[in-house]
Amino acid sequence: MDILLHIPDPAAEAWRVAFARALPEAAVALWPERSDARFDYAIVVGPTVEHAAALGRVKAVFNLGAGVNAFWRIPELPPGVPLIRLEDAGMAEQMAEYAAYATLRAFREFAYYAAEQRAGRWSPRERRDKAAFGVGVLGLGVLGTRVAAALRDLGFPVSGWSRSAKAVAGVRAFSGADGLAAMLPDCRMLIVLLPLTPATTGLLDRRTLGMLPGGAMLVNLARGALLVETDLLEMLDRGHLAGAMLDVFAKEPLPRDHPFWHHPKIEITPHVSGLTQIEPSVAQIAGKIRALERGLAVTGIVDRERRY
Amino acid sequence: MDILLHIPDPAAEAWRVAFARALPEAAVALWPERSDARFDYAIVVGPTVEHAAALGRVKAVFNLGAGVNAFWRIPELPPGVPLIRLEDAGMAEQMAEYAAYATLRAFREFAYYAAEQRAGRWSPRERRDKAAFGVGVLGLGVLGTRVAAALRDLGFPVSGWSRSAKAVAGVRAFSGADGLAAMLPDCRMLIVLLPLTPATTGLLDRRTLGMLPGGAMLVNLARGALLVETDLLEMLDRGHLAGAMLDVFAKEPLPRDHPFWHHPKIEITPHVSGLTQIEPSVAQIAGKIRALERGLAVTGIVDRERRY
Repeated sequence: MDILLHIPDPAAEAWRVAFARALPEAAVALWPERSDARFDYAIVVGPTVEHAAALGRVKAVFNLGAGVNAFWRIPELPPGVPLIRLEDAGMAEQMAEYAAYATLRAFREFAYYAAEQRAGRWSPRERRDKAAFGVGVLGLGVLGTRVAAALRDLGFPVSGWSRSAKAVAGVRAFSGADGLAAMLPDCRMLIVLLPLTPATTGLLDRRTLGMLPGGAMLVNLARGALLVETDLLEMLDRGHLAGAMLDVFAKEPLPRDHPFWHHPKIEITPHVSGLTQIEPSVAQIAGKIRALERGLAVTGIVDRERRY
Repeated sequence: MDILLHIPDPAAEAWRVAFARALPEAAVALWPERSDARFDYAIVVGPTVEHAAALGRVKAVFNLGAGVNAFWRIPELPPGVPLIRLEDAGMAEQMAEYAAYATLRAFREFAYYAAEQRAGRWSPRERRDKAAFGVGVLGLGVLGTRVAAALRDLGFPVSGWSRSAKAVAGVRAFSGADGLAAMLPDCRMLIVLLPLTPATTGLLDRRTLGMLPGGAMLVNLARGALLVETDLLEMLDRGHLAGAMLDVFAKEPLPRDHPFWHHPKIEITPHVSGLTQIEPSVAQIAGKIRALERGLAVTGIVDRERRY
């Protein structure tokens, strides 16, 4: 079995070694070493146009991440080739950590206390009403569900929204456009874990952000293009939103002159909320390759109609 | 039944109303309105020397907090009067929130990312090994146990230390001086939830802080005098400890000229990690007063030998 790996340096060699160890029956080549050869499986971090020919001849393409929006730029990927995304593989836990941190930071007013420390002021505040501090999670896939459960376990009232109706224990579930309008007014925190599709691009705009209650916070852990960045700036500067914690951006790395860098109400991290981990990812993909070789079904196959 | 309340303004009246509502059979007076009268129960936020005479004649003294160290300054409190501290009453959840926040902030390097944002740098880092990020909790009472469980549920390897041996599911438990020396070298985070007693005063000094691994973080949520503040500064400035997040101090409010205010490795909050909440506290104390009136046993009675 021949496997083609296309992973950016400097990690490429570590991944090659891990896949070779997990699949000793396979020959694992790094792109573009043998780009003329025929491969059984391709494992890529997003595709490039140069991949198209090679990808068209494989049995399946694995993406080393949960988000597959970059694939729609490659029209050449033939319909018969399944595109398989990473499911969890350690990312859900990371997302839950990040979301818990952002929510506790907002709820417990740690940014306020840091400012008071800088000013040399001892200014205790009353505890806020946790039952009134609603947290909304957009997207109830593997990642969103784990995030919603973690926040529920921390004692927050959690709502979740997804395209199709889903149930998560202890989480108020909403779906569809009406569901979104019904949920947002109760969300002091809004945590975004949606896939980027034509239907969700720019979903977070002036209109939807305006449905959040005054003083709400936005946390985007999914894809930058879900958010209309200029609309976020407007809602922050008008004082409708209290702040935003953003890990993803329309353009990454965030351009040097972007207003998010030094906005007093925006905290940014450089797309680290859910990093792909070698060990669980390799184990997951190796297991799926073996299943496919035995003619068994696997999960995580992208629906090209829905685009996730 | 007559109840004496001594609570600092401006909250005193709200507490009086809440106790009067919870115990309609009682007359609830605010100190010093009727300081000459005889009371059945006293409910205080720490004692003052002026209380001594009144407290000596009550059936029990309730402290509106978990820490009772301030009582040992009143030698007049007669041995026959039980001193009862608040148990949990919403504080454990608050402590767990604070400890989870501090731990996630350190583990996920959010202070580093904030500095990189200020510098306008996009500098993603690899994920750290969570299995190697040990969290130690000093004190496994109601608060420490809840904190240890919350961190365990977030996926951290948690150790706990207490005076006498205790067991908490999924937590490595240590006790005694040997146990402390065995536990500290594995603690990247050390979270302090000990009672302040003659045995624990100054426990966190150059020697014990020096047993932590290089780059460790200290979080003190209990009492300032557990920590030798100058020793902490020394360990931070020598680079042995990476930082500290402190909610309590030897002197509170923290004096204006104290070096903690503007130390780059210290984050402070003004004794807000576990705020006494009116509703659950009143319910707990009212329930205990009714039990005592019926001759039943109650929990939370302070052991004057151990001093907690």
